[in-house]
Amino acid sequence: MSMQRFVTLTTDFGTDDHYVGTMKGVILNVNPAAQIVDICNSVQSYDLLEGALAIAEAYSCFPTNTIHVVVVDPGVGSTRRPILVDTGSYLFVAPDNGVLSFIYEREERVMVRHITASHYFRQPVSATFHGRDVFAPVAGYLSKGIAPDSLGEVIEDYMRFAVRGAKPLGDKLVRGIVLKVDKFGNLITNIRPDDVPRLFEAEPPPFRIVVGKGDVRTLRTTFSDGPPGEAFAIVGSMGFLEIVTNHGSAAQVLTAGKNSEVTVMFE
Amino acid sequence: MSMQRFVTLTTDFGTDDHYVGTMKGVILNVNPAAQIVDICNSVQSYDLLEGALAIAEAYSCFPTNTIHVVVVDPGVGSTRRPILVDTGSYLFVAPDNGVLSFIYEREERVMVRHITASHYFRQPVSATFHGRDVFAPVAGYLSKGIAPDSLGEVIEDYMRFAVRGAKPLGDKLVRGIVLKVDKFGNLITNIRPDDVPRLFEAEPPPFRIVVGKGDVRTLRTTFSDGPPGEAFAIVGSMGFLEIVTNHGSAAQVLTAGKNSEVTVMFE
Amino acid sequence: MSMQRFVTLTTDFGTDDHYVGTMKGVILNVNPAAQIVDICNSVQSYDLLEGALAIAEAYSCFPTNTIHVVVVDPGVGSTRRPILVDTGSYLFVAPDNGVLSFIYEREERVMVRHITASHYFRQPVSATFHGRDVFAPVAGYLSKGIAPDSLGEVIEDYMRFAVRGAKPLGDKLVRGIVLKVDKFGNLITNIRPDDVPRLFEAEPPPFRIVVGKGDVRTLRTTFSDGPPGEAFAIVGSMGFLEIVTNHGSAAQVLTAGKNSEVTVMFE
Repeated sequence: MSMQRFVTLTTDFGTDDHYVGTMKGVILNVNPAAQIVDICNSVQSYDLLEGALAIAEAYSCFPTNTIHVVVVDPGVGSTRRPILVDTGSYLFVAPDNGVLSFIYEREERVMVRHITASHYFRQPVSATFHGRDVFAPVAGYLSKGIAPDSLGEVIEDYMRFAVRGAKPLGDKLVRGIVLKVDKFGNLITNIRPDDVPRLFEAEPPPFRIVVGKGDVRTLRTTFSDGPPGEAFAIVGSMGFLEIVTNHGSAAQVLTAGKNSEVTVMFE
Repeated sequence: MSMQRFVTLTTDFGTDDHYVGTMKGVILNVNPAAQIVDICNSVQSYDLLEGALAIAEAYSCFPTNTIHVVVVDPGVGSTRRPILVDTGSYLFVAPDNGVLSFIYEREERVMVRHITASHYFRQPVSATFHGRDVFAPVAGYLSKGIAPDSLGEVIEDYMRFAVRGAKPLGDKLVRGIVLKVDKFGNLITNIRPDDVPRLFEAEPPPFRIVVGKGDVRTLRTTFSDGPPGEAFAIVGSMGFLEIVTNHGSAAQVLTAGKNSEVTVMFE
Repeated sequence: MSMQRFVTLTTDFGTDDHYVGTMKGVILNVNPAAQIVDICNSVQSYDLLEGALAIAEAYSCFPTNTIHVVVVDPGVGSTRRPILVDTGSYLFVAPDNGVLSFIYEREERVMVRHITASHYFRQPVSATFHGRDVFAPVAGYLSKGIAPDSLGEVIEDYMRFAVRGAKPLGDKLVRGIVLKVDKFGNLITNIRPDDVPRLFEAEPPPFRIVVGKGDVRTLRTTFSDGPPGEAFAIVGSMGFLEIVTNHGSAAQVLTAGKNSEVTVMFE
């Protein structure tokens, strides 16, 4: 049944209020056959990078034609545009504030439209809750099969931010940061294996990774490879270097957190 | 397919325990075609007002015939009655403790029944978890299409509480409270535009809104209209006056919280 | 429709990250007709007992043939085995670390298989996220109707832990612990009515239950039977003795928490 499409939600609305439930009601009111799936509604308030990471990690696991709604929207009610992004395989509905930057980076071909077809909006459109009044109903109509080009014109000047990448500082130093701390206290850095190829040589040179109040001298494959209480590095499921500890929180062990500096030093 | 009806959940059971999942199992066991949607399961424990606000904001966004289950139930196992409320467009299943007060206020016509048809309950009915044993199975059967009048007799003496409204104190003063702090730190007051019409005049007189340790002298349209770090007032998506700040938490900026006094003073 | 089966999730992945959403995407990508239901994704990190309790309380409320996915997996990437458990009525997919111990205890007949059919896994299988790469796709295929015996051989040496039961210490003393504190602050102990039959006699002898900084001298039927602010005992919805208080948190009233000792003393 072509109308039984998936709509996912990635927002900073939290789960302590009615906001997400209300958005679901609006989507289902437009298309009772829509299948709604939460990706994450607990993005830190206003945190575009965290929202961008969450949708980037999850979107491609979903069935083709899924409609991904991403609402981290500090500029709600201002002139920031609502947009529809079509990658050929997926549709994204979001504010034009860069929250889809990683999608632009990973997908070869994206067609971005400024959503102007206000007859699809919930009227009257409030100044403060476009999740309910703009993004949810548009997703509902998309899940019913309306054509993307009925929503607005293609634009090229959409906003994107670059992933703040790790910086090589001379031959023996790479400096990055902690992008995010996950629920387990794993420190997810912005350092990718390509940024530190020597770490992955058959016989890597001795190294130190300085983070927070501690440092790390080993790279392992998975959490359970290390002794409990000792922090070490792995390449995490997102493809970034992570500082973790077995059966505990690296954030606590090292007294480090989001935005902490991470320095890889080779001897 | 008439049996594919929506059942929503608004509870104070939280998401750290099995309670909500168990309720969903019971509903689906009665009617595998039910479509269950969470509105909010993180209502503060025992907080009838917060539950009442959550369901009031969300219910009318859902498709007609949705069954709304609302379980904030400090009196579980006592003589408080389980009730079914029929508005013509929606059904509500809840304890009779006032948690549906705003529904009674907003809907022209409500028919309230005392649910006594215990053959629809999960047996044996525990004294402590009517979410599982009473409300979930009743919602399951309603979603299968059983008639409301098969559940029990109409009653008139159901409990309701009045929304604690804002109080005008003389000509130049209106006193209200903070009903709730949302995930963003927005202070949602019990003051409606009708309570302070002068704020909305074409040229409003100078005013101060005193809340917590600060005060507010501007009314704006949306969050992004204000400078970061400064608290100001808007009319929020719920129709109440809210004290907010751009890209931050008004609760923190003003050191205010739930039940803080809010005084609007005109000069 | 036989392919429209329920898949439940009980994990320690939390709701602040994309992990649970990603697992749902993988399941739906394998079987778009699967109906996914969260039991609880906020099990404390690495806490096998808490995961075991959550699934044990909820599983049997779901329709027959539901597939229960339980991922509390501190040994991910090590040699611990992924297993499939078939009780005749339900299927369970989990790591072989004891998280299904209460299922083994409650079900008369379980058939446990070591999942080795890696062609059903998401490739390449990461070392750190088997929720996404192993358990989710296997659950997806099971929901499509593949036979359990196509996943791997039956094993007998699966891991199980005994519920740490309450200990009778002489004639007048039973010592237990707090297994878990729920969202309401109820202290759920490991003491079952059978461990303290004298409490349930028609005329029970005087007793004291010492927990945290206080003690409890009454057994009641439900929360609302007690005066607010006073802790008392009930038999909770899980069948364990719980220390609770009306309209408040027993954990706060008694300054007690998870793993606190609970001593029942008869005079």
